[in-house]
This record gives sequence, structure tokens and C-alpha cells, in this order.
Amino acid sequence: MSFDLVLFGGTGDLAWRKLLPALFQAWRHGSLPPGGRIVGVARDALTDADYRALIGSRLAVVEGEKRPSAQEFERFAALLEYQRMDLSAPADYQLLKDKLEARGAETVVMYLATAPGLFTTACEQIGAAGLATPATRVVLEKPLGHDLASNRAINAAVRGVFDERQVFRIDHYLGKPSVQNLLALRFGNALFEPLWRRETVASIEITMAEQLGVEKRGAFYDGTGALRDMVQNHALQLLCAIAMEPPINAHADAIRDEKLKVLRSLSPWTPATLAQGVVRGQYTAGQLAGGQVRAYGEEDGVAPGSTTETFVALRTGIANWRWAGVPFYIRTGKRLAAREAHIAINFRPTPHPIYRTPLGAANRLVIRLQPRDGVALHLFAAQEKRGAAAVQALAPVQLDLDFEQRFGAERVGAYERLLLDVIAGRLNLFVRADEQEAAWRWVEPIMQTWREQDERGEGPRPYAAGSWGPSAASTLVARDGNTWIEEC
Amino acid sequence: MSFDLVLFGGTGDLAWRKLLPALFQAWRHGSLPPGGRIVGVARDALTDADYRALIGSRLAVVEGEKRPSAQEFERFAALLEYQRMDLSAPADYQLLKDKLEARGAETVVMYLATAPGLFTTACEQIGAAGLATPATRVVLEKPLGHDLASNRAINAAVRGVFDERQVFRIDHYLGKPSVQNLLALRFGNALFEPLWRRETVASIEITMAEQLGVEKRGAFYDGTGALRDMVQNHALQLLCAIAMEPPINAHADAIRDEKLKVLRSLSPWTPATLAQGVVRGQYTAGQLAGGQVRAYGEEDGVAPGSTTETFVALRTGIANWRWAGVPFYIRTGKRLAAREAHIAINFRPTPHPIYRTPLGAANRLVIRLQPRDGVALHLFAAQEKRGAAAVQALAPVQLDLDFEQRFGAERVGAYERLLLDVIAGRLNLFVRADEQEAAWRWVEPIMQTWREQDERGEGPRPYAAGSWGPSAASTLVARDGNTWIEEC
Repeated sequence: MSFDLVLFGGTGDLAWRKLLPALFQAWRHGSLPPGGRIVGVARDALTDADYRALIGSRLAVVEGEKRPSAQEFERFAALLEYQRMDLSAPADYQLLKDKLEARGAETVVMYLATAPGLFTTACEQIGAAGLATPATRVVLEKPLGHDLASNRAINAAVRGVFDERQVFRIDHYLGKPSVQNLLALRFGNALFEPLWRRETVASIEITMAEQLGVEKRGAFYDGTGALRDMVQNHALQLLCAIAMEPPINAHADAIRDEKLKVLRSLSPWTPATLAQGVVRGQYTAGQLAGGQVRAYGEEDGVAPGSTTETFVALRTGIANWRWAGVPFYIRTGKRLAAREAHIAINFRPTPHPIYRTPLGAANRLVIRLQPRDGVALHLFAAQEKRGAAAVQALAPVQLDLDFEQRFGAERVGAYERLLLDVIAGRLNLFVRADEQEAAWRWVEPIMQTWREQDERGEGPRPYAAGSWGPSAASTLVARDGNTWIEEC
Repeated sequence: MSFDLVLFGGTGDLAWRKLLPALFQAWRHGSLPPGGRIVGVARDALTDADYRALIGSRLAVVEGEKRPSAQEFERFAALLEYQRMDLSAPADYQLLKDKLEARGAETVVMYLATAPGLFTTACEQIGAAGLATPATRVVLEKPLGHDLASNRAINAAVRGVFDERQVFRIDHYLGKPSVQNLLALRFGNALFEPLWRRETVASIEITMAEQLGVEKRGAFYDGTGALRDMVQNHALQLLCAIAMEPPINAHADAIRDEKLKVLRSLSPWTPATLAQGVVRGQYTAGQLAGGQVRAYGEEDGVAPGSTTETFVALRTGIANWRWAGVPFYIRTGKRLAAREAHIAINFRPTPHPIYRTPLGAANRLVIRLQPRDGVALHLFAAQEKRGAAAVQALAPVQLDLDFEQRFGAERVGAYERLLLDVIAGRLNLFVRADEQEAAWRWVEPIMQTWREQDERGEGPRPYAAGSWGPSAASTLVARDGNTWIEEC
């Protein structure tokens, strides 16, 4: 199956940090379909040779594998071409069209790895130039808007040119093997279904903790914040995978229909739940991984007195038969004590304990996403201890599975998986417009509340870099008698 | 708490192979209550010093630990005394009584590690001598009879002298940490209860496979066979732990009441189930662990033309609300391909698979008893494999727990645990008379059928040493579409 992959933003960070290394890896391992061409698009005046040299000098980061030798890169680089374009100039699209038509590949992928402000323009121009044929697929990177209205505007522009089946909205979390495994575990195993419900589950926690700060993306991050950057997309996608009903089959729309139902069943916010169920924080200077790090307000690109949140914790619920009454906790932040992402299903305790059990003990299934992905089932076993006192006491034990250990060399990185899926036309791991809009609709009252708080001079709660966030995040779960999990 | 432990059969195999090493280990680790005395009883004329020297020369096997030094043994040996007794001579019981009364220990344990033929006599004499005071406990080793009638006779003799609360019938399997963990896993975890029932479980397998043959116990074994040696006691106790209802508390009688209910709910045998649901085998010569081993019929002590079974496989069920219709398979044998004991809970497959799943794939919980004890949960995860073909396929994965690794040095051997429990008066891990009788009642029709088969010249099915038993054992489970598990 021949394909042309047109990489708008072909000289940008995303292209050389993530996309081209992923394409290189797929090519190296023979997974990239034969008959492919990659066309880098940017404003710079470069020849194909210039572009190949530029990418070659930057293709240093090939995750977990050895750098390509000059010879190996040269063979890969034969797939690379370059097209200079001004994305607002219709004539440049005609040049691209000529280039594509000359080859007539069966599939044409337009990957918009550009600034999001250009999405609408690019789509309109692609349409106007007659580049949106049935053979075309378009890939959109986040952020797709900064609120419901702007998201809708982008989706409307895309919809004006492409059919939804041609649109691949990336949430790179969905490309991670650990996230794909959420669905496989739930629907590939009969074992979990009887346990996966309000009668047996006490609460569900989703934590995505980073040690990194805003790095070089201060200006971008300051206009975004943790709610838009992590919660509206990644966290809600994880929540959907955990909470959704069994889909009728494993096709993209069957799965996305079920995810949409979850997003639409999220407990609507009320003044009370907005006040008590959401905590935003911003890191101050602190000690992290043995070094001193500065406060968010002092990061490059951050506006003086910024109230952008670098931490969010919230408590919500899902108003349906399966989950009514079960709290779902989401927590994410930068400059936290550890790099750790996990989903924990906390089960209810034994209804009538007949053994001496550690206080508050209950079973838990932890699906680890970071730093290593795996599954751990926390149980209790007979305490083995010499001496009479231990009889009939229980001790915590853990059943473990480490995916790295199990699948090792066969692992495929998130972007590699997603790019191969785009080329093959598989939509399963991509987000549909209505999902995105439902997610934006649900986070909007939070953003509105924060704007009002800002006007009253109530900014985010400070937390020391290297901590687990503001203590109000603990209060949030403590009201239900719970604690966050901070060591998997 | 001072105690006297009177070891009838004090110079016998069980005493120096199992009981005295276990007592030594408890003493070494400070678990043996202070103020104890161990009185070896046998026919030989020995002084205390002779007895200490005899035990010292034989106390080689201290499982998993270093041999005692001469000094260490000497300190332990200070607990040992000897009493010469002819178990049929009333006067000798008076001598024992004088010895015990002179010390007046708070607890007196009479451990009958003698030939089972002496149980009735010993109990009667103990009673006649006035040795059965409320401070006395009696320990009975298997075999307690060779059928229901003989078991009842022994239990009646015991009951004539002791209250059931004073009687500790040993099934050493119940002392194994892995077997104690069956109850802890089931009733210390809320997670399993929704899964532990006919709606979710397809079948349950109990396998206890030995590589050993009859060793030096040919004559004993030839009069016993696998059904009496392994099934009537150990296998049924495991089955009870897996199948029983939650007890009202963890006290001995609450647990034994529930086990008794299971034994009384075992599917009654019919001519059809006896014919199709039971397979007996006897090993022939074969290749095992790299060496040639001889046939059962050629072992020392085995009668020419013996029809004693060295292998049993059977299929039964439990006629109650929780388990109706779920097959329970039991398999045990000598000279099999591996030393392996496990219980497998085979779950039903997903009702509506949406992924490509390996044929016949279903979840399984394996509780390993031998060679290492642990728990393994067999699940399916997303197949991670480079290349497009793998999408939406599942691969088997396993969540593991190894108890040795988890509890390591704290582990207590079966006999050590049981002896400490006897001294402390804890009956949980001992078998009540009514349980034993119910188990005998259930195996009797099998023994009767085999006697009739023997009369017709239909002996046990031959199987090569080193194999997994007669192929009829596979047919037994294949009729339900199942296979035995032969690698945990």
C-alpha cells in the first residue's frame, strides 16, 4: 500500500523529536508499509538534501534503541522529501498537489504538526486546493482549542473538508501500550466484569504525576495549564477506558460510542462540587531529586503573577447504573515528588472479616502506566511469622505483572503505533469530535469558576516543588475516608 | 505455659524424621513455649541419656536450616526424657502417670505416633489409668482406619476417653502455609467472593503429583493405595477449603462445620459416575528424571499381582447452590512426570469476545502448593508485536506471587505449626471426627467398585513411570472439554 505522509511543521520540535524517530523505528523494524514517502513541509527554503541533512543531525533520540549509523540513516532518508510552503498561500497548496498527484499514492496523510492556530487555515486551504480526496487522512495534534467554543470551531472547519472517518485526532496517551491494555484487560478477560461495578468498587483513582516543570515551554504552558494540558484529554480518556460499558465490537466507533456515553454521564458540576471537589495548585520553589528548582512564577515565559495551575485534583462521579455513588479521583501535576502514573481500582473491604486484617485494608488493582507499566493486584494472605501471636492475622501481598518484562523487545512506542494506525486507516486509538466536545463541555465550569476566583484574587494553592501538591488535595479524598496512592 | 509432650512411638520414623526436628526448630527460634518437656515413649530399655544420644545422632534433617552443633543440641536435649512402655501393659501407664503428676504441667499432649493398630488400645489404657484429665490433649496421626467402619471404631474409642475438643487429628497438609492461605485468600479478600461460584467458574482442578514411588514403604502402601493415602484426606481437605461457604468466624468449629457441609454435599456416586468418573492406575517401569525406575509390582514389600492403585483421577461435583454443575477434578499419583501440586480455578470464557483470543482461552487462578507455593492469575493482555497484524489480538500474561519470596525466613514448617497449635490448644488445622467419617463415607463406593472389578479381573490401568498417568485420566476431563494443567 503506497502512501505519502505530508508533515506540516516538518522542521518543528514534534517532527524531529517524536514523529520522525517513530517513523524511523517503524522503518528499521520493517513495520512501515513499503512504497512510502515522507514529505516535510515548512516555511524554510530547503532542498530535499538539506532536509535530510537537518533531520539526520537531529535524529539523535531513538527511544530505547541505538542511533542509526550514517549508512542506515541514508537508506531511511531516501523516503524523505521537502516542500517549502507558506500555509496561508493557496499557490503553495497547488505545488503540494502537483507533487502528490505526480506520485498518486493510494493513501495521503496530512499530519498537522503545526501551531494549533494554523489548523483551521490549513484545513480550509487543503479543501480549497482539492487536496481532500477520499484517499486523504488528516492528523491533528493537541491542543485542539482552549475551550469548547474554539474546539468546536476547529472541528467545524475540519468537518467542512473531511469526513469524520478521515480525521485522526491524536491523544498520544492512547498510543501507549499500557493504555491499550486497559481495554484488553477489561474486555479480554471474563474475570473482571463481575468486579467492575459499584457493588464491589469503593473508589477509583487516576494519578499522572510529573517531576518535570514547564522546561522550555513556559509561554505555551502559561496559556494552557494542567486542566487543559492533562485532564481534559488524557485523564478523561483513561477514565473512559476504565468506566465504559463493554462495546459491541472492537471497531473504532463501537468503542468511541461507549466512551462518549461515559463523558456524557460524568456528574454535572454544581456550585458545591466545584467548591469542594476541585483543587488547583501552582508550584513554588523546592527541592526535587536532590536539586533546588525554582517556582513556577519564575520560569521563563511565565507571566508575572500568573494564576495558571500546574496541579489539579478533582473528585467526580459517573451517573449511571454501573458507577452511581463511586467516587472517581483525578490528580495531575508538575514538579511533584515522583514521576508516577497509575490507575487504582480500590475495592470494598470484606463485608464480614473473620481474620485480623490491617486497618482499612481492602483489595486494590493497580494499573501502572509510569515509570514502568504493569499490573499489580493487592491481596491479603496468611501472615507467616514464627510464634503464636501471628495466627489468623493477614499480611498484604501483591501479584505482579510487568509488561516490559513480558513483551520486552516487541514493544512499540506510542507515536510509532499511532502513525502506523493512521497509515493503515485504523481509528481505534483516535478521538472523535463528539468525545472532545463532551470533554470540553465538562471542564468548562471548572475554568469559569477559576476565572471568577482569579477576579476575587483567589489564585491557585501554592505547593512546594517536590511535594505531592497542596494539602487540600488530600482533604478532597479524605472526606470519603480515602488517601491517594503514592507508591505503587 | 508449662507442657509435657508425650511422644508414643518416640524412637520411630515419624518421631525423628518430622516431630523432633520440628520441635527443635520451634525451640531454636524461640517459638516453643518455655517450661516444656518432651517424653519419648517406646518399648526399648533406654535411659534419658541414651534417648538424647539416639535422637542427637538422627536429628540430621532440619529442613532448610543448618544442623545443630553439639552444644546447641545439648541445650535442646535437656527438654528430652524417656519412658519405657509396653502399650498393652496397664502398669506402664501408671509409671507414666507418676512421671507426669510429679511435674504437674498445665498441658499434657499425648502424641500417638505409633502404628495405627495401637490407637484404640492406647486411648483405652490412657483412660483407664486416669491420664485423660481436662489438661490432656491427644494427637492422632493418619491413617485413622482403612474404611468407614474402622475409622468409626477408632473415633469411638477416642470419644470414650476424650472430649472432641481434646482430640487433634493430624492432616499434615493443613499445616502447610500454602493450604492455610487457601482460606486466607478466600476470606481475607473481598475480591474473590463475586467470582467464586457456578456463574463464573467453569471447573476446578486439584492435582497432587509425586515423582517418588513407594520408597521403603512398599508393604504399608500396598495395603493402602492412593485413594486412602491422598484422596480421602488431603485432596478432600483441599476441596473443602476451596468450596466451603464463608464461616461465621475463624474458630475451629465454625470452619469445620463449613467443611463438613461440603463433604456432605459431594455428589453421591451412581453406577454411571463410578464407571465414568473414576480412573485408577498403577505404574509400570519407566524413565523418570533421567533414570530407569521399576514397576510398582516389583517394589519391595508389594504383593505379587497387587491391584493397589498408585494413581487416582476422579470427577465429582458439589450439590449446593454455589457449585451445582461445576466439575471438580482430583488427580494424584506416584511416579508421575513432575512433583507438582496445585489447585486451578478455571473461569468461564468471556461471554462476547471482541478481541482475537487464543482458542479456548479463559482466565485461571492457580494456587501452587508444590514445588514452590504461590499464586498465579492467568489473564490476557493486548498482544504487543511489531507490525500491523497484531492489532486487537490478545496474548496470555500472568500475575505472580511467590510466597517463599514474600515471607522467606519467617516460614514455619507444617509439623512445627501443627505441634505449636496442639500445645497452644488451637484446633483450626485439625480434622474433626465427623469430617473424617463423611470423607470415608464418600470414598467407600469407590473402594467397593474396585473390589468388584478386582473380582472380575479388571485391575488398575497401567501407566509408565514418568508419564502423567493412564490416558483414561485425560478422557475423564476431555468429556467436559477440559485438559489437566501440567505446567504452572
